[in-house]
Amino acid sequence: MTAFADAHRETLDRALAALADRGYWSAYPESPSPRVYGETAAAEGLAAYEAHLGKRFELDQPGTVGWVGAERSPYGPELGVTYPRADLDVLLAAARDAMPAWRDAGPAVRAGVCVEIVNRINRRSFEMANAVMHTSGQAFVMAFQAGGPHAQDRALEAIAVAYAEQTRVPATARWEKPQGKRPPVVMEKTYTVVPRGIGLVIGCTTFPTWNSYPGLFASLACGNPVVVKPHPGGILPLAITVSIAREVLAEAGFGRDLVTLVAEDPGGTVASDLAVRPEVKVVDFTGSTAYGEWLEEHARQASVYTEKAGVNMIVLDSTDDYAGMLSNLAFSLCLYSGQMCTTPQNLLIPADGIRTPDGVRGVDQFAADLGAAIDALLGEDKQAVELLGAVVNDAVLGRVEGAGTLGDVVVPSRTVTHPAYPDARVRTPVVVRVAADRPDVWGAECFGPVAFLVTTESTDFGLELLRRTVTARGALTAAVYSTDEKVVAGAREAALDAGVALSENLTGGVYVNQSAAFSDFHATGANPAANAAYTDAYFVSGRFRVVQSRRHTA
Amino acid sequence: MTAFADAHRETLDRALAALADRGYWSAYPESPSPRVYGETAAAEGLAAYEAHLGKRFELDQPGTVGWVGAERSPYGPELGVTYPRADLDVLLAAARDAMPAWRDAGPAVRAGVCVEIVNRINRRSFEMANAVMHTSGQAFVMAFQAGGPHAQDRALEAIAVAYAEQTRVPATARWEKPQGKRPPVVMEKTYTVVPRGIGLVIGCTTFPTWNSYPGLFASLACGNPVVVKPHPGGILPLAITVSIAREVLAEAGFGRDLVTLVAEDPGGTVASDLAVRPEVKVVDFTGSTAYGEWLEEHARQASVYTEKAGVNMIVLDSTDDYAGMLSNLAFSLCLYSGQMCTTPQNLLIPADGIRTPDGVRGVDQFAADLGAAIDALLGEDKQAVELLGAVVNDAVLGRVEGAGTLGDVVVPSRTVTHPAYPDARVRTPVVVRVAADRPDVWGAECFGPVAFLVTTESTDFGLELLRRTVTARGALTAAVYSTDEKVVAGAREAALDAGVALSENLTGGVYVNQSAAFSDFHATGANPAANAAYTDAYFVSGRFRVVQSRRHTA
Repeated sequence: MTAFADAHRETLDRALAALADRGYWSAYPESPSPRVYGETAAAEGLAAYEAHLGKRFELDQPGTVGWVGAERSPYGPELGVTYPRADLDVLLAAARDAMPAWRDAGPAVRAGVCVEIVNRINRRSFEMANAVMHTSGQAFVMAFQAGGPHAQDRALEAIAVAYAEQTRVPATARWEKPQGKRPPVVMEKTYTVVPRGIGLVIGCTTFPTWNSYPGLFASLACGNPVVVKPHPGGILPLAITVSIAREVLAEAGFGRDLVTLVAEDPGGTVASDLAVRPEVKVVDFTGSTAYGEWLEEHARQASVYTEKAGVNMIVLDSTDDYAGMLSNLAFSLCLYSGQMCTTPQNLLIPADGIRTPDGVRGVDQFAADLGAAIDALLGEDKQAVELLGAVVNDAVLGRVEGAGTLGDVVVPSRTVTHPAYPDARVRTPVVVRVAADRPDVWGAECFGPVAFLVTTESTDFGLELLRRTVTARGALTAAVYSTDEKVVAGAREAALDAGVALSENLTGGVYVNQSAAFSDFHATGANPAANAAYTDAYFVSGRFRVVQSRRHTA
Repeated sequence: MTAFADAHRETLDRALAALADRGYWSAYPESPSPRVYGETAAAEGLAAYEAHLGKRFELDQPGTVGWVGAERSPYGPELGVTYPRADLDVLLAAARDAMPAWRDAGPAVRAGVCVEIVNRINRRSFEMANAVMHTSGQAFVMAFQAGGPHAQDRALEAIAVAYAEQTRVPATARWEKPQGKRPPVVMEKTYTVVPRGIGLVIGCTTFPTWNSYPGLFASLACGNPVVVKPHPGGILPLAITVSIAREVLAEAGFGRDLVTLVAEDPGGTVASDLAVRPEVKVVDFTGSTAYGEWLEEHARQASVYTEKAGVNMIVLDSTDDYAGMLSNLAFSLCLYSGQMCTTPQNLLIPADGIRTPDGVRGVDQFAADLGAAIDALLGEDKQAVELLGAVVNDAVLGRVEGAGTLGDVVVPSRTVTHPAYPDARVRTPVVVRVAADRPDVWGAECFGPVAFLVTTESTDFGLELLRRTVTARGALTAAVYSTDEKVVAGAREAALDAGVALSENLTGGVYVNQSAAFSDFHATGANPAANAAYTDAYFVSGRFRVVQSRRHTA
């Protein structure tokens, strides 16, 4: 039972050290190169993915009363995979039955088992990449990285933070109170970490693994059984995850029902059914503000961690590397067709333009330059699709196609034909120019490849808009471009006031929409876009409690 | 601005070390002896207390629009002190204005200022003891200890945990990602602790300082302004606290409105008005289950920490020190007339009695022995009042006087006359025998000097009742007496399942209703009696967030 803990002690220690200094560290290589993962890994992963198609995904879960599943790839094909439909009473009872032994195993054993699960997920990264690609619509390399190693790093991060927080309190203590000339009063005390109950993880379709793993592994590492409820459009990546977790738990001598899958067809209500069950004590959710708020309102018996919509903002003032800024912005807007919760939406630009080494660039000129940078980045269709991926659903498509009604289109969207998947809907980003006094247009999230070039009377006013908008509507990311230290300082102050992470003058290979596990927090919990961050102590400390006992001793 | 941080660095380090090993430590001497606090301290403290009576308590708070206050000592006299009535809009705006500088000061400076506040409170422990005595009805020595040094220790504990959690993340980091043969990508990152907003502390009448300090100092140390809303019956101890905090904050160069008092007369609704204000982001409350649940339900914009009612249970099985057990139980029942949230309520005893070194004692015999132990402990009235204190309000008095209708009175309550305060209502505890199948009688909190001797078919069934009752209704404390290791193990398992702290075989000078700062958690957050514990990481981690910024560097 301690074998995995022993085997992974060094990994855990390394993760803890990385969290303490927050320098660069990654446990899982992000390159899908054959030199890293082996010559045959890509082909085997594809074959493993294809072997799921058109079949039942067997999980041997108790209370299986039917089969559901209707996933269709954003690239066109139906997956045809079906998953167990669960009798929740039976499933939750089985999960709870497995809990005491998992609790009694303690934080170190649990961390070891969790790391083993992630390691095995890592070995199946190519299979996972295909599964993520054909549910989220991400391009292959991104699906590999964000759905595989980057998600695995976030999982390991959550395991490490959970371990650290559970072990802040010693397992035992000797308490010796002096009594003057009489002998001291001596007590022996025991402190035990106890889980809260069942954790529910509600997945999203765009990042089925990356956004689910922190909650899944934080809950599990803290002793809670976890029920995984994927988005109906993104079940397969989490089904693979659950099946690996069940296999490792059983090998380690624990009940495999500590991790279960509850799938449903589109339009189902099982997430809400589960979220208000008295057995469910922790809920993790990524998705719409409306449903996140519903969960916060109704899942009163649980600690609820939500990541919701936001309005990401970039304040443009000046730069000493105009080309670098443009290509960085272009990449951020194009990556996965802007379907990231971290994609910038509003580019705030002073009406009289921005200062560059080549002089002031007016708003129209900047828009033209940004359009050219996007074109240069994307190139021909066959390259473009490797960055854009596919539009994930009709709602996103509708927003791109309707963007022209919102203001002046200064960078038009272009339809791209996918050479391998002619049914895939691929669009380049549209940029719409709109004035600062139209927050009805730019002041709410417009998810997808739609950005607004918002003209403001000054940079200072842009910073004030950032402060106000993020405070009121939330944001996952914010950025500033300025060569003026006073402007950068003002941006930092605005970001602190609004509670959003700030990226300053990104002109190289780091993008505002990317965050690095072990160093960057994802979200802050300090603005309406999310009530917690991946992964700080707050994110894990509500997933367990400490119960003590005490007795006199000699 | 860093002077207090420098001066108190050693105290803070010592507190952090105590929390890490959870051995005995106390910063503030609990003995009201002249040898500790000085020959003149008691008289000066009494005079300082008396100087408040019949006067306005000046706090120089913005938005003061009148004066309120109607405290009456449970010992008889009216206090006649009045306190500022606040215009909440003005007061909250002033609190918020003071926040940015307090945020920017950082965790170390804030901790230093907070420790200085507590140190100055300590110096006024005799004044505070009188204020606590004449609001809560505690006897003087207990009012000194629980309202003074023990509360101060809990304050320091909260400051230390808050400091520890805020400094888990480094202030800056250098992130250097290798790029194969190319130069690494290097970023410099900054992490800033930001407060959530205004903290609201809603005090109770029985422990105005002890139950308020953890939330007050945790919020303040994390950068949040704090509005203190005392119980209308227990304002003075918190007014003194607020005035000291304001004095120290101003000396340290911060806005004194970081800590303010909002008092009201009985029947007021200002707690509810404040709790749902958008500026209020943290709420701490001790009191009734009904109002705690109202806060959890309605203060949705805030992190809400509640301590509510519970049903404390002791399972009696066997003992190797019958006299020690009896005197320990007697003390726990008598202390402050059972008006502690930690006082045992239900003594579960097998119907065929308990095993002792002198043979089995039947239920009737045990009841008689417990009654004798209470009589022996209390002695004559003039000694008895020093343990019992006074009944705090009519509701408590009604419960004692009505207890005879609930079952067979096996230890009757006795009316005690206070030699110095003839108007004080003092009652010894009543013990009522009732069967296990009457949870309608014993299954809810009956706050005050009323205990139930609950007869069960077996010890095992008693443990099962403990498990079920605490899971359903909550508890602050639980205890077991048994010489059988299997029974003790069963009690530990039941306590873990129910999420309650367990005291085992207490026969000496440690009582189930007392918890020691830096070692014992108060409450667990794992059962319905409280949603958090004094003081674990969970209690503080929701009071701040970390906001980062990042930029490329050479």
